[in-house]
Amino acid sequence: MDGSSSHRSTINVTTGPLPASERIYVKGADGRVRVPFREIALHETANEPPVRVYDTSGPYTDPAVDIDIDRGLERLRTSWIEERGDVETYDGRSVTPADNGFADGDRLVKEFPSKHRPLRAKDGNAVTQLAYARAGIITPEMEYIAIRENLGRAKLRDAGAVEPVPSECDIPAEIPAEITPEFVRDEVARGRAIIPANINHPEAEPMIIGRNFLVKINANIGNSAVTSSVADEVDKMVWSIRWGSDTVMDLSTGRNIHNIREWIIRNSPVPIGTVPIYQALEKVDGVAEDLTWEIFRDTLLEQCEQGVDYFTIHAGVRLAHIPLTANRVTGIVSRGGSILAKWCLSHHQENFLYTHFADICEILRAYDVSFSLGDGLRPGSIADANDAAQFAELETLGELTKIAWEHDVQVMIEGPGHVPMHKIKVNMDKQLAVCGEAPFYTLGPLTTDIAPGYDHITSGIGAAMIGWYGTAMLCYVTPKEHLGLPDRDDVKVGVVTYKIAAHAADLAKGHPAAQARDDAVSRARFEFRWEDQFNLSLDPDTARSFHDQTLPKDAHKAAHFCSMCGPKFCAMKITQEVRDYAQNGMAEMSETFRSGGGEIYLEADKSGTTTR
Amino acid sequence: MDGSSSHRSTINVTTGPLPASERIYVKGADGRVRVPFREIALHETANEPPVRVYDTSGPYTDPAVDIDIDRGLERLRTSWIEERGDVETYDGRSVTPADNGFADGDRLVKEFPSKHRPLRAKDGNAVTQLAYARAGIITPEMEYIAIRENLGRAKLRDAGAVEPVPSECDIPAEIPAEITPEFVRDEVARGRAIIPANINHPEAEPMIIGRNFLVKINANIGNSAVTSSVADEVDKMVWSIRWGSDTVMDLSTGRNIHNIREWIIRNSPVPIGTVPIYQALEKVDGVAEDLTWEIFRDTLLEQCEQGVDYFTIHAGVRLAHIPLTANRVTGIVSRGGSILAKWCLSHHQENFLYTHFADICEILRAYDVSFSLGDGLRPGSIADANDAAQFAELETLGELTKIAWEHDVQVMIEGPGHVPMHKIKVNMDKQLAVCGEAPFYTLGPLTTDIAPGYDHITSGIGAAMIGWYGTAMLCYVTPKEHLGLPDRDDVKVGVVTYKIAAHAADLAKGHPAAQARDDAVSRARFEFRWEDQFNLSLDPDTARSFHDQTLPKDAHKAAHFCSMCGPKFCAMKITQEVRDYAQNGMAEMSETFRSGGGEIYLEADKSGTTTR
Repeated sequence: MDGSSSHRSTINVTTGPLPASERIYVKGADGRVRVPFREIALHETANEPPVRVYDTSGPYTDPAVDIDIDRGLERLRTSWIEERGDVETYDGRSVTPADNGFADGDRLVKEFPSKHRPLRAKDGNAVTQLAYARAGIITPEMEYIAIRENLGRAKLRDAGAVEPVPSECDIPAEIPAEITPEFVRDEVARGRAIIPANINHPEAEPMIIGRNFLVKINANIGNSAVTSSVADEVDKMVWSIRWGSDTVMDLSTGRNIHNIREWIIRNSPVPIGTVPIYQALEKVDGVAEDLTWEIFRDTLLEQCEQGVDYFTIHAGVRLAHIPLTANRVTGIVSRGGSILAKWCLSHHQENFLYTHFADICEILRAYDVSFSLGDGLRPGSIADANDAAQFAELETLGELTKIAWEHDVQVMIEGPGHVPMHKIKVNMDKQLAVCGEAPFYTLGPLTTDIAPGYDHITSGIGAAMIGWYGTAMLCYVTPKEHLGLPDRDDVKVGVVTYKIAAHAADLAKGHPAAQARDDAVSRARFEFRWEDQFNLSLDPDTARSFHDQTLPKDAHKAAHFCSMCGPKFCAMKITQEVRDYAQNGMAEMSETFRSGGGEIYLEADKSGTTTR
Repeated sequence: MDGSSSHRSTINVTTGPLPASERIYVKGADGRVRVPFREIALHETANEPPVRVYDTSGPYTDPAVDIDIDRGLERLRTSWIEERGDVETYDGRSVTPADNGFADGDRLVKEFPSKHRPLRAKDGNAVTQLAYARAGIITPEMEYIAIRENLGRAKLRDAGAVEPVPSECDIPAEIPAEITPEFVRDEVARGRAIIPANINHPEAEPMIIGRNFLVKINANIGNSAVTSSVADEVDKMVWSIRWGSDTVMDLSTGRNIHNIREWIIRNSPVPIGTVPIYQALEKVDGVAEDLTWEIFRDTLLEQCEQGVDYFTIHAGVRLAHIPLTANRVTGIVSRGGSILAKWCLSHHQENFLYTHFADICEILRAYDVSFSLGDGLRPGSIADANDAAQFAELETLGELTKIAWEHDVQVMIEGPGHVPMHKIKVNMDKQLAVCGEAPFYTLGPLTTDIAPGYDHITSGIGAAMIGWYGTAMLCYVTPKEHLGLPDRDDVKVGVVTYKIAAHAADLAKGHPAAQARDDAVSRARFEFRWEDQFNLSLDPDTARSFHDQTLPKDAHKAAHFCSMCGPKFCAMKITQEVRDYAQNGMAEMSETFRSGGGEIYLEADKSGTTTR
């Protein structure tokens, strides 16, 4: 059930709809936007309309779209960008051997076949969604997002199916009953949400990252010096969005970084993030102290022209913060953080990303690349959580946020890492306070260090909690964390785990309509609509296969019992009797039961093995 | 690395130590107790003593013990029980065909070979740990538990390795820096903790369930009418305690319940829980309304004599509560709850477990079986969480707790189920308030319904949180929840996931010494002691195998780099330089770095694929 593959290219990716699903489109008021959703059809006995869910999978799940990896996706935002009249095409940088880590011959992966001349802002304009929002403009991107985030709330509410759920806890979310384009604009204007949307990545379907919207997740992919290929990485990107990743970071190191990234971006319907210092380091052959502002600047331009939507920039790793890590159990564990620390120590100078921060802003505003201000000093262990180094850097990130905003550049803030449960809210609250409510984008956090091999779970716990507390996007962790490179299966487990965390957070924040999917699953479960239960779940294939391991016959999926208790007893059937009882009164029902004879044999129980 | 198997019996179980581990024993002051721990040896370069961890695995991991499933485990508590002078042996009940669900011929599994005459209290005594605690007696069980829970805290603290971690949040735990036998006695005396220890299960190693002790987990096993066998269930019991389950519930239904349970108890070093109504129902051929107090009472006696340590008793499913479930999305999902609801409706009478509650107390006090007051009306979906039915039952459980305490019977309270994050603490706080702080024992809770196949994760999130908030024992959920019966692999994943949740809760509660294991893992990680990192983890086999998928050669486990970043760059090495820098001052170090030449090439980076 993994769908079929595209065979037009030498690169194969998974295509085709998820089970019982159809990719549908909702048009905006004047028809300029066409917003995708996934609709999951239910069995006719449900007597319910299809369940509409947010869809990150892009055209890959739409059988009507002809996928050709060598050509790339349709450039849907091009007309919106050009109609604003504030950009120009230009020749752009020439690709150098350094851009691909000096790979040559057989080692150089082939260039992406189609070339596009890059766009940039004319006349020093800010072409960012933040600049437009501040100017009171509702862009097509904002309209698109409003429809997408609204997720048919109004329709569901009109049908009486949704009641807004007030949060019972002290959580700083302000989630409206309906998401309007104006609300999107206002949240972007005040910096509480970002729309990562490089003008050179018009293939991307607009999405928003902010704590008053649905909680998002990110999947990391990327080759390394040791292993993996361009085909693997493109496939992982498509695979991760199939299961729900909202953005993808390409963390490639080693050779071929430029060419691999081009293949990924041209085929990605979700925003792509990178850590430009990784590529800059390859250009100086891995010698951190040889990094210069000029090499870094050139790398930023290279990636801006390709269409990267957000950059992790470790400008908060200031020279004075570095000694604060000296007594840590695990020192500096961020790769970017350690590169910059190395550079600062070697030169005994302030971090050049900090000293050139305004210059970086000038570049990013010309392409609408968003900052993801990196937490290079994040804790790498429970022992180091919430320490002086981490919080000193966070305060610096708050200062930098203000500077970015002065340049009309969108900003989110990266967060840890490894944090025990009782320190998570402290972290979140401090981020909101010192970073002016810019969106928080956290890695996990892992709530214990003792379970390598299960760090999707140790971190999924922390991710759900910090998502509830206000984190806008959760960076996934796979089962291979600390141990090796994730393969395709690991990517899927990581994505599904983080969709669970994000959805649990949406529920706890009282998002209207979030619970609609839970209720649909629960009704299906209660009514023994097995296929509906599978199809409505985050991973229908796994749910179906687990069921079939015990009761493989198709007939059992229609039968009103399951493997846990067998065909004799059914909690669900009892409930119908309870309902009759509540309706008809005790005396009458008691009589009915007693006279019912054979009917009182119950058929099944599906409450599961942990019932007691 | 799953250890070897015992071949003395037709039933094979996994035996042998975990990697690098040794089962050691610590004797009490006067030598009457001998408390097991697991010590994990570290590589010589660590220059650290072995790490001592709590050990639930029983003699199965001790190569010095001769395991014979047909004989059962050593009856280590017999002398303690007899020395109290308040029990007598007697003939006990005869096993009837009904006890095994009328199985005969080939369908009847063989009886456990060794017979023991049961014990019971003499002269209407209460032989419960609660009665002793109230009388000011420190039993050997309490002394054993004090040593076991203390987990070498005093030793670690004397070595300067442990500082008590104050909880930063409003969590009602009162965890002392050192667990003494007096503290154990006091917590049991006030009902805040229980020691499930049937006098007829002398094979069990004493353990405690209470929120001021380490958070415990339970694994459910048991055959069903559809599938599985006695050998499978004994194997699953041994397998689940190998990975850390603190108690095991035998939820068998269908035939052979009596005989399977006997095999399990005689070979179990952890307390065994059951839901006696399941067996009672089999005795009336599955017809709930044919249940009677006499049949139930006889079943209790049967299980008391066998040695079951705690009973789930659904006495809170009162007739008047049942109509409160009528408008639920998922009605009554507890199997026990639905059996009792069926009975109440059919007879239009109050639940006989409620009306006979004092009689049940009289039975349990004669064997020291603890109550696990069942939550028969727990929510089965997010939609039904914290509703009137659930809370009405919880209040009844509070009343029943007081009655049990009047009879000197130990009590814990079962909790849900399915609860979104923002309603979890409400649940916990209400339980503490209405049940007099009796220990809470929760199933999950699942924080969303949309991920069947991943419910160990949806519930692991809720379990970690409610454990932090005060739940004393977490009932595991496996990936097969709602879909099928867990197999061996599912049991392991469920147990490891719940160990993560319990440990994350211990950390967040500020348990002294809880963080010691995290820190040991973190140091091993930071120093590239790969084998130590694997061996210290909750599941060494999985951690090792994940590592080897990318870098299979043994040499790589000694090498100072990993697959994520390759051999060129290492965040860990940077840190040593930071330490030198902090120590030596900026100017000097800058010079050192610049003149270091080739040394500035870094060797490795093990910070993982999600580094950025």
